[in-house]
Amino acid sequence: MIQFDALFKISYGLYIVSSGNKSHGNGFISNTFFQVSAEPPLFAACCNKDNYTSTLIRETGAFSVTVIHTETDPDLINRFGYKSGKEINKMEGMKLKYGETGVPIVLNDCIAFLECKVIQTIDVGTHYMFIAELLQSEIVDDTKDAMTYLYYRQIRKGLAPKNAPTYIDKSKLAAKIPASDNKKYECTECGYIYDEAEEDIRFADLPDDWVCPVCGSEKSEFVEVKN
Amino acid sequence: MIQFDALFKISYGLYIVSSGNKSHGNGFISNTFFQVSAEPPLFAACCNKDNYTSTLIRETGAFSVTVIHTETDPDLINRFGYKSGKEINKMEGMKLKYGETGVPIVLNDCIAFLECKVIQTIDVGTHYMFIAELLQSEIVDDTKDAMTYLYYRQIRKGLAPKNAPTYIDKSKLAAKIPASDNKKYECTECGYIYDEAEEDIRFADLPDDWVCPVCGSEKSEFVEVKN
Repeated sequence: MIQFDALFKISYGLYIVSSGNKSHGNGFISNTFFQVSAEPPLFAACCNKDNYTSTLIRETGAFSVTVIHTETDPDLINRFGYKSGKEINKMEGMKLKYGETGVPIVLNDCIAFLECKVIQTIDVGTHYMFIAELLQSEIVDDTKDAMTYLYYRQIRKGLAPKNAPTYIDKSKLAAKIPASDNKKYECTECGYIYDEAEEDIRFADLPDDWVCPVCGSEKSEFVEVKN
Repeated sequence: MIQFDALFKISYGLYIVSSGNKSHGNGFISNTFFQVSAEPPLFAACCNKDNYTSTLIRETGAFSVTVIHTETDPDLINRFGYKSGKEINKMEGMKLKYGETGVPIVLNDCIAFLECKVIQTIDVGTHYMFIAELLQSEIVDDTKDAMTYLYYRQIRKGLAPKNAPTYIDKSKLAAKIPASDNKKYECTECGYIYDEAEEDIRFADLPDDWVCPVCGSEKSEFVEVKN
């Protein structure tokens, strides 16, 4: 038996993984970055093959990782997590520095960053896993906690975007309150779904100043999802 | 510049990764298990080449993962994290079930478990990274929170054992209170170091009923470390 809810018990952080250079930079929200070996320190980052950042990492052989904090601006998560770098320039207006390899490093809502050089690329189905060595690492703000995937899901009510390794089709999850009259509402800005079967409160009963937990859009920008 | 403290901003869970069979089973405390691809769901586990569990995973081509909760018995962490399966039978007396592949699954302090079949083994220096597909996953106890590495370090005061991918030589870290008269005390049972430079309270001032945060040994079992 595969119980998909069990996969939510695995712990992850939340990061912006960026690559490219001064003229063409891009990044995406990642929850799969981790140290895989101690001496020398080696790291792994997973990136969907369709992501523009994948192309840039393969071109440059390098990437940066921004560890974001728990109070990160929803717009930042929306920009890097739910938009495509093929359509918008995600780095425009961002607070950036450039690494030793020339890759952009996002400093907005950043508590620490790392710069890594790829030494091996592994094909893992929908994703590439980039194995990389550490070029530099620095703490930027030691006063805030790192955002974790659990915090993002529970407190900020975010869900993994479709391109994440941990994306789970919600139809595979056990509904909390299986009731035939539960409805779903979609944020027309970022695609976030408010699913009454997963919540304790009806969408209509949410306060008027409630905003999309992912991108900050107003309640009025949600539309009911017809099955 | 490489600032090693920055690596502590990466988020991890804490798991028991087990392998072997009914007659020869073993497991170790791992903080590096994660999903790396979405469809089909693929996972990666990192295991030090010197670990006995590495040998068993290579022999059986399979492993189980126990997600442990925040109130996990320190003895369990000590047994699986700080002892060698070459010396003791770690599975003796444990609450076990056996997976489809025959690997043991530890159910003590377990909130969820997974069983995985290795499809690729990658050499990453000190560690093997096992890429694996999911055979089964199940929630055992949905009332408790998953232990995270941060929780273990901050609340339980644990440190990565030497065989962990995230082991960091403490001499590379910036001391919190660099004072020449700070002392260090070592747990003679598990090797945990109480370093006054990293703490807010002198060892001598700890209450008499204070116990080792890793293995639960009494204060009297600590000895001063002479430099």
